[in-house]
Amino acid sequence: MYCIHMSTMSKMKTFRACQHLIKSLFNEQVFRTPLLRRGPGQRNYSAAKETFAVMYTEHGEPGKVLEGKILPLPDTVGPEEVFIRLLSAPVNPADINMIEGTYPVKPVLPTIVGNEGVGEVLEVGASVTTLRQGDWVLPDTPGWGTWREYAISPAKEFRKIPNDIPVASAAMLSVNPCTAYRMLTDFVDLQQGDTVVQNGANSAAGQAVIQIAAARKINTINIVRNRPEIENLKTQLKDLGATHVVTEEFCRTPAMKELLKSIPTPRLALNCVGGKSSTELMRLLANQGVMVTYGGMSKQPITVPTGVMIFKEIKLVGYWMTEWTNRNKGSPLRDKMFDDLCDLIRDCRMVPPPCQLTPLRNFQSAIAQSAEKFSGRKQLLQMNCISAD
Amino acid sequence: MYCIHMSTMSKMKTFRACQHLIKSLFNEQVFRTPLLRRGPGQRNYSAAKETFAVMYTEHGEPGKVLEGKILPLPDTVGPEEVFIRLLSAPVNPADINMIEGTYPVKPVLPTIVGNEGVGEVLEVGASVTTLRQGDWVLPDTPGWGTWREYAISPAKEFRKIPNDIPVASAAMLSVNPCTAYRMLTDFVDLQQGDTVVQNGANSAAGQAVIQIAAARKINTINIVRNRPEIENLKTQLKDLGATHVVTEEFCRTPAMKELLKSIPTPRLALNCVGGKSSTELMRLLANQGVMVTYGGMSKQPITVPTGVMIFKEIKLVGYWMTEWTNRNKGSPLRDKMFDDLCDLIRDCRMVPPPCQLTPLRNFQSAIAQSAEKFSGRKQLLQMNCISAD
Repeated sequence: MYCIHMSTMSKMKTFRACQHLIKSLFNEQVFRTPLLRRGPGQRNYSAAKETFAVMYTEHGEPGKVLEGKILPLPDTVGPEEVFIRLLSAPVNPADINMIEGTYPVKPVLPTIVGNEGVGEVLEVGASVTTLRQGDWVLPDTPGWGTWREYAISPAKEFRKIPNDIPVASAAMLSVNPCTAYRMLTDFVDLQQGDTVVQNGANSAAGQAVIQIAAARKINTINIVRNRPEIENLKTQLKDLGATHVVTEEFCRTPAMKELLKSIPTPRLALNCVGGKSSTELMRLLANQGVMVTYGGMSKQPITVPTGVMIFKEIKLVGYWMTEWTNRNKGSPLRDKMFDDLCDLIRDCRMVPPPCQLTPLRNFQSAIAQSAEKFSGRKQLLQMNCISAD
Repeated sequence: MYCIHMSTMSKMKTFRACQHLIKSLFNEQVFRTPLLRRGPGQRNYSAAKETFAVMYTEHGEPGKVLEGKILPLPDTVGPEEVFIRLLSAPVNPADINMIEGTYPVKPVLPTIVGNEGVGEVLEVGASVTTLRQGDWVLPDTPGWGTWREYAISPAKEFRKIPNDIPVASAAMLSVNPCTAYRMLTDFVDLQQGDTVVQNGANSAAGQAVIQIAAARKINTINIVRNRPEIENLKTQLKDLGATHVVTEEFCRTPAMKELLKSIPTPRLALNCVGGKSSTELMRLLANQGVMVTYGGMSKQPITVPTGVMIFKEIKLVGYWMTEWTNRNKGSPLRDKMFDDLCDLIRDCRMVPPPCQLTPLRNFQSAIAQSAEKFSGRKQLLQMNCISAD
């Protein structure tokens, strides 16, 4: 019972009921570590003099090159620093690619794994005014290394986020929900009633797209690969607010044409697959539509017939969250994005994808399971499970 | 001697010298029809009661389906109409595609051929205030039918242009120079010293790109197919203001890397070829660069590796002049574009591509020659050659 059941979730009426559900399903039946809110100062953690961390010294297969290590921590927290207890971090495809050495961000080796995750501030240095004990923070630098239990780092490396949202939502906030938010905001001036079409719709970003679009009353056509128990997946995505969920095969049938008549022609397409699937998206786009590519799961290139490009006047753009973040560190657009997303999370209008919680020290198991096809769940590492209250 | 020699042209210092050159090379040695300025009211043309026109009643190969016909003209010019004498019209690829039925604009058949060309107003209807005798006009509707000698049409179907530029420049103004102008203006905020890379650089649009860019002090890297007498082509394009002219083969050599070091990395790529050539352009583009596709001469699709799209954050857009014109009929942007282009033409900073003049009645010969590979010249139909003063 580690997966939140989305159909149940979407029927919850109040924040309290939602909280209760997450707490009951997500945390207490699986781990003792508190995944939901915790007040500051409940315990003095500054006794920690060392930390467990997942590291690698050379690129290669994660199963071979990753090592769990115990690293010493500095004795004191410097004036500009904060002492952080990591709470949770997901296993993202970018983490795997970075370990393999195929990601465009190349860390200096040896390094600690983990681009995304949430931590809690335990102590702040004498000169730190932007954070205080009990605050929740996200690292603001790609490759900062979230797969560890504790860290002492400059305060400026973190972004404060509200600590009244579920830990799972916080741990998976900075990549996929932000990607979905920006893709729905920055490329086409979408209005209520407009339509967005996406492939890989069951990905973590795809699920965030469905929920943000539904909150804005934007229709979504969601294309997924056919699979065993496809009806379950359809139900799950519709419970999140998907207007239509169809398989790639269905897209090429006359029934698809009928379905398209029921809503406006898509002005925005979101592509995380490439190959034939992206050609299909372009075919569905309205004239002057935009296709945003943010992934290439098929490992096939995007192929565009020249006539479609010119006479439909479509636009193809690439989107990379990391680069957007680098360019918008202190921008009000970024503050608004986090505020809007946290509001949706508090309203239970955005839930994280189903996930499997794994203690950080079992990271090898989490990595192996993250490669499983059609698993339908995300691997979420939990820190401090054993020592938690 | 029907081709203007560009290296000579670019050395001309004054408008008068330029005029003289065009007049001597272009007109008087070839046809008696005046290709340069002519004052209004030099002759009363209203005696014309019929017109020669090139028509087709079904789509197919131009050599088979086109017919020259004599059509009657109305006896009188209606109050909202103008009586036009066509001066000159090019043979464009879009004309051929429209005849074949492969162009997205489908005329009602039977129809008169010709999307582009310039005419002179001979008479205006009683209520027409926007045009007067002697004005030069371009038809504002694609597929209006410029391959005829005379026409009586509503005044609102035309755009007035200055009549102090060469007829050849006027006849070929509304498609290629406008396409080049918009592509250099609307997609990237180019500054002096920036670089643009283009394939098919010797096309009519490509030559306009070189000249407009040179006038704005923007570098151009111009990629052309290898061919017999490639050095002549290089000289011709450099005389127009090209910074570098290279073959597709050269692009893949280490020498190309050296050449690229001499100027900033291109922020804009212009693609009229597709296939491998467009992949080459994307490789040369800077991060966040834009590739505008306006043609597909190789008949191969554009193939984009997903990683290039995402991590270089490049943008791919299609551009279709016809559609831009439809959306901007009365826009000040359009007025400014024509003013700017005519200024460049008057300054001898923009000359038309080398062209071969053919009397309209020999249209079949012009069409056959327009299909010739590496001809390096455009076919330009001349009207009223026989009857001209």
